[in-house]
Amino acid sequence: MLAVFGHLNPDTDAIASALVYARLLSRQGVQAQAYRLGDLNFETPFVLRHADVEAPPLLPSLPAGTAVALVDHNESAQSVSNLAELTVTRVVDHHKLGDLTTVQPAFLRFEPVGCTATLLLKLHREARLSVEQTDARLMLSAILSDTLHFRSPTTTPDDREAVAFLAPIAGVKDVTAYALEMFAAKSDLGDTPAEALLKMDYKVFPFGDPAQPQSWGLGVIETTNPAYVFGRQAELLSAMTAARNADGLSGVLLSVVDILNETNRTLVPGALEEQVVRETFGVLTTGSVADLGDRISRKKQIVPALERYFEGQDARS
Amino acid sequence: MLAVFGHLNPDTDAIASALVYARLLSRQGVQAQAYRLGDLNFETPFVLRHADVEAPPLLPSLPAGTAVALVDHNESAQSVSNLAELTVTRVVDHHKLGDLTTVQPAFLRFEPVGCTATLLLKLHREARLSVEQTDARLMLSAILSDTLHFRSPTTTPDDREAVAFLAPIAGVKDVTAYALEMFAAKSDLGDTPAEALLKMDYKVFPFGDPAQPQSWGLGVIETTNPAYVFGRQAELLSAMTAARNADGLSGVLLSVVDILNETNRTLVPGALEEQVVRETFGVLTTGSVADLGDRISRKKQIVPALERYFEGQDARS
Repeated sequence: MLAVFGHLNPDTDAIASALVYARLLSRQGVQAQAYRLGDLNFETPFVLRHADVEAPPLLPSLPAGTAVALVDHNESAQSVSNLAELTVTRVVDHHKLGDLTTVQPAFLRFEPVGCTATLLLKLHREARLSVEQTDARLMLSAILSDTLHFRSPTTTPDDREAVAFLAPIAGVKDVTAYALEMFAAKSDLGDTPAEALLKMDYKVFPFGDPAQPQSWGLGVIETTNPAYVFGRQAELLSAMTAARNADGLSGVLLSVVDILNETNRTLVPGALEEQVVRETFGVLTTGSVADLGDRISRKKQIVPALERYFEGQDARS
Repeated sequence: MLAVFGHLNPDTDAIASALVYARLLSRQGVQAQAYRLGDLNFETPFVLRHADVEAPPLLPSLPAGTAVALVDHNESAQSVSNLAELTVTRVVDHHKLGDLTTVQPAFLRFEPVGCTATLLLKLHREARLSVEQTDARLMLSAILSDTLHFRSPTTTPDDREAVAFLAPIAGVKDVTAYALEMFAAKSDLGDTPAEALLKMDYKVFPFGDPAQPQSWGLGVIETTNPAYVFGRQAELLSAMTAARNADGLSGVLLSVVDILNETNRTLVPGALEEQVVRETFGVLTTGSVADLGDRISRKKQIVPALERYFEGQDARS
């Protein structure tokens, strides 16, 4: 049984793509089971209810050598802790290739599109398999989520075409209305503890010299209601400092992305983060908030800029 | 202009796949040019004549940041020396994933099939592009070459189906006769210097602790005429020792694969190689030759065994 899972702090694509890929593989004769590596965010339960699917179970501890398939990630820092002991036989992903290696030749499918689910739709079509309604709902939701309904600069024509293809199968007549409903669910953060808000869409990235990287935690809250998040600014800054110390990180940033207005105001908890944000983006921090303008994609606009900054720093040191 | 190339010491797949992929990308609107990283072996000119194509030019020195596409390899030790400075935007390969990383999300297509050309045929079909006769001849030849006309244990049903699909387009009525002609061309080694024979199909692999790997050079001569090769055994052993010293390697092995009888007798130039062959394969070396039986695939039978051996050694040390 092949274990299929997305990244830590799963978003809708990480959950939906694990479910859809496991089902696709099973239809192709490869016994597979979807798992998740953490708690759901506030958007994903809405998506699962709409698709009438249960959330995948938490990944159990896997013995060394177990065959696994990764979706929506490939770097060890974003995966199960003992990934190096497992046998990765398949990866479907739309991120840059990090430190992944495989023991044997494997199935790898990477394309620079906005969402892993866009690639899963291609795999269905290439295999000449019909798309079932449940899978169409999951893939459609994942694409709208990852591309912020085509607002993100990561969006490609393939993502738009995929949504156009999937909407009738999913029975979604008004894609815009569905996306707004999904984003509203995501923004209904209630009394979630600050630490959970920070870690909801949070990835740790190694920057600089690969032999001695600096690890940074980069969180994103995509919301239609940024005022709510900034109302809890003090709590969030404390949670960020605590995470930096507890996890041995060099820095932590939390970008609050206003989905509807396409802006990013980022919480900056300390002096080092302030310096790095200033030197990387040319932006001053005021009252622990840096206005990063329209840089709403962590993958395409935040991480590459930080990578260049830390590489330059290594070169100068 | 995207530079497309296969591995050092190119074989027929490395050359044919670079040519076919560059043409496929050009048909899809991506300007691309095929290159090679070294001299042709004795089989490839026969294939190029049959397909009526010129050999791709030697890769010129590329400035840092140039976009490149890799075919039939992904490890830096088997690629252009400044690969780390180049921008890899596409890879089509059937080997295990090594130390490759990408700066941005890229197009990666890896499948555990017998030949890169098998994947290129899939790319044509997925893009609903007809296959031109020249490309059909190149892909057919590459698949027959890499799978030793389906004798290699790396052969998959996809490779067989690809050949069945390509043969009529290529105008090859008798695939068996064509493969024998190709293998005869490959075996006509004439008065090639011993060093060139060693390096004709030769790859350097890092084994053991990735931080401090031991590098081994592993050559293969696939031939219908092993008697000719063993007639030059003394010269070849000298060339192997010279290569080990000149390239700072821990060991060098040269497997002489009898294509028709599917056997592998490997030249073993020194005491360390003798010990490693004995402890890895349980085979004694007699007169500098170790009979490795039916282990005719470097990728599937030689390299994985050596990897396990050196990993175990690290664990013990």
